[in-house]
Amino acid sequence: MYRILFTVWLFLFQALLFGQNEDSLFIRRLADDGLMNGKAYTNLYILTKTIGGRLSGSPQTYKSENWGQKALQDAGADKVYLEECKIPHWVRGGKDQAKLIEGNNETSLNVLALGNSIGTSSKWISAPVILIHSFEELEKKKNEVGGKIVFYNYKFKSKFIQPFQAYGDAVIYRAEGASRAAKYGAVAVLVRSMTDGTDNNPHTGAMSYNDSFPKIPALAVGLWDADKLDAALQKNQNLKIMLKSNAHTLPDTVGYNVVAELKGTAFPDQYITVGAHLDSWDPAEGANDDGAGCVHSIEVLRLLKATGYRPKHTIRIVLFTDEENRGSGAIKHASNAKANNEKHVFALESDAGGFTPRSFSFTMPKDRLDKIKNWVSLLEDYGVYEFVPGFGGADVDGLNQALGTPVAELVPDPQRYFDYHHSAADVFENVNKRELELGAINMAGLIYLVDKYGLQ
Amino acid sequence: MYRILFTVWLFLFQALLFGQNEDSLFIRRLADDGLMNGKAYTNLYILTKTIGGRLSGSPQTYKSENWGQKALQDAGADKVYLEECKIPHWVRGGKDQAKLIEGNNETSLNVLALGNSIGTSSKWISAPVILIHSFEELEKKKNEVGGKIVFYNYKFKSKFIQPFQAYGDAVIYRAEGASRAAKYGAVAVLVRSMTDGTDNNPHTGAMSYNDSFPKIPALAVGLWDADKLDAALQKNQNLKIMLKSNAHTLPDTVGYNVVAELKGTAFPDQYITVGAHLDSWDPAEGANDDGAGCVHSIEVLRLLKATGYRPKHTIRIVLFTDEENRGSGAIKHASNAKANNEKHVFALESDAGGFTPRSFSFTMPKDRLDKIKNWVSLLEDYGVYEFVPGFGGADVDGLNQALGTPVAELVPDPQRYFDYHHSAADVFENVNKRELELGAINMAGLIYLVDKYGLQ
Repeated sequence: MYRILFTVWLFLFQALLFGQNEDSLFIRRLADDGLMNGKAYTNLYILTKTIGGRLSGSPQTYKSENWGQKALQDAGADKVYLEECKIPHWVRGGKDQAKLIEGNNETSLNVLALGNSIGTSSKWISAPVILIHSFEELEKKKNEVGGKIVFYNYKFKSKFIQPFQAYGDAVIYRAEGASRAAKYGAVAVLVRSMTDGTDNNPHTGAMSYNDSFPKIPALAVGLWDADKLDAALQKNQNLKIMLKSNAHTLPDTVGYNVVAELKGTAFPDQYITVGAHLDSWDPAEGANDDGAGCVHSIEVLRLLKATGYRPKHTIRIVLFTDEENRGSGAIKHASNAKANNEKHVFALESDAGGFTPRSFSFTMPKDRLDKIKNWVSLLEDYGVYEFVPGFGGADVDGLNQALGTPVAELVPDPQRYFDYHHSAADVFENVNKRELELGAINMAGLIYLVDKYGLQ
Repeated sequence: MYRILFTVWLFLFQALLFGQNEDSLFIRRLADDGLMNGKAYTNLYILTKTIGGRLSGSPQTYKSENWGQKALQDAGADKVYLEECKIPHWVRGGKDQAKLIEGNNETSLNVLALGNSIGTSSKWISAPVILIHSFEELEKKKNEVGGKIVFYNYKFKSKFIQPFQAYGDAVIYRAEGASRAAKYGAVAVLVRSMTDGTDNNPHTGAMSYNDSFPKIPALAVGLWDADKLDAALQKNQNLKIMLKSNAHTLPDTVGYNVVAELKGTAFPDQYITVGAHLDSWDPAEGANDDGAGCVHSIEVLRLLKATGYRPKHTIRIVLFTDEENRGSGAIKHASNAKANNEKHVFALESDAGGFTPRSFSFTMPKDRLDKIKNWVSLLEDYGVYEFVPGFGGADVDGLNQALGTPVAELVPDPQRYFDYHHSAADVFENVNKRELELGAINMAGLIYLVDKYGLQ
């Protein structure tokens, strides 16, 4: 009896070992191909250097859709198609400008209109400026705000080890600052950029208006200028600012999610999705946000195809349109999936840059996450050393919301992300080839494991 | 009885929890100070931008010693002193040049004489070139090498996940290639740079001659030019190369290890050392190699002092002279420690760049390493998620060799290191402020734990 049990145990143990070993060898093959024949870096070069920034509704939107279709075909997709969406069409309309007026001195400030904001119709407006460090201070000084330009100088908290926490803490000033100030009669807002980087680039990003209050211009200020402005206003509260922006919103237009599939052999009607957003802000090339995620996603397909893997489920790659302004690509994709009664096993996103991977963050029940944590041992040689519960990412979250699909996001090293994010520094040169490749390798490894073992 | 045992157990458990909690809070204070008031980044700026490259024996050697003393005093050292060493004095002596001659065409190659190599006394030399991919190929073609310039085109193996492994695999061509080729009558060698980066910068670094064979010039070639040269030689084996270098070696001179101490309260005669090397190669500013390690080490002292920590053991910071050419600073420091019968508890080095920390690599017995692995839980919030057995680093290894001192090295994310290493790209701009700061914070955390609990 013992002997039989022992034999059974040995058999199971060996099967387990064999399984782990087979998986380990396959992931090693993905890594070899990714590091020796990888296309992510050259794909990113083409996207960033021949197309550049890809603001929703801009001419680059359509160029990047064409690029995405071709890159996915070249990677070996069984089919590539477009999914139509209504997308916003906000336009910067030229160079945003601001000047601090101290007596006869004018000092230029490095500014960039926030996404979705209204401009000044290209005319200079001028008003006294009031320094506000927090919404609490705004409430205290609400009677002093009327007719003025509010300068929000709420700083990124450097002591957060995870810069995404600092962003989460500060971003409400960008998102809501304009309407909160307009409520008390402010005529425009300047907002300290969402970064604790070391340069003076302003960082744009989405804001939205509360329809109860007048819409007023809203611009980001670079950190050096924000510090200078703060110091000047601490000394002299009677300063003025002039500013000018031609930002404006055109009627919604049409954009497309670019979708590719590698057909499943056993469950062709069950989907595992890998995605990223194709749009970006306009001050640079959207290399880390989210060109890196797009080429990661394309590379996952290429790696699976190049290694001859035949997925059981259909692997779907989605390059989402308009994540930045309104998230319309993700919403449309999820609502189509729901309308079509699609079965989605899992969805993975990359939207945190092309840096060395450290973990995956999952939105799924804890007991199911616990069951797959042993997969970490298969990925840790390649960078991912833990699976953590958390947010799966803005684009795949749509599937989680609509269908309850378990979703996850690649978590690369986060320390440099907000140095570049939404600023002129988000260029190809700030992505490292090997770091980028390792991201795709870990993503392909995870997709392979989910496809093979499921998430039950 | 059970109740008493339970009470004792509870007490011990609470004491353990309290200890962990106290440690966790203290390391959090180190992190807060390091991220909010850190001096590592500005120190690195001054070192790299006002002094620059610090080749052993160069005028910058002495400038950097002065800088180091001042920075350590400013960080709060109880005393700062110099430790005299005999150091090598190799000089590049001007711009190294090489040209490929194909018929009437001359193509410039991006080259840099290897450290310790002889030059051509600033005269052009010209010889046929032979393409060699490995020492095995050299042995096969040994009869074809006489009178020629050997071009070693051994590539970094991209598939190594850890680029330090690729370096370890390839670096013998830089270190020994000249003498191995001279053995068969070669007149000079060109060596593919030790990197799999994406630019054409040549990467220098130490080589040494085997005294049994003639000394011949040895130069590194940038990757693009190495690839072009390989392609040209595959097509036509009758090509020539002209090259010129004024590299030469002057008599040994005097340099200094810069040493600072924070006196121990309980065991002032027992040392815990933290160090890095002050010298660097000359094509750039030695920012990652090893300016980052120097400012890490200085910051450890500053952090312990700024948080009011009173170490039990004497904390010694050493900025080693001449690691790159001959390792004379480390050898001298270890031999002095041995001669003075010093007791060294532990030594920690940072010489792998200013990138986000991932682990510490220890040279110490496995059973002792196993005992401290639970400290990882105190550091993992700040980046270090594992302690691994391995090499402690070239400078602290001297103490390990001489006294058996347990030693360790900070292991930052390694993916970018060889993009910059010993090349024109090793500049301040390629160090990220937060990543640098996190390195120092983890080092200070480890030093605190070793000081408090020892390594028994």
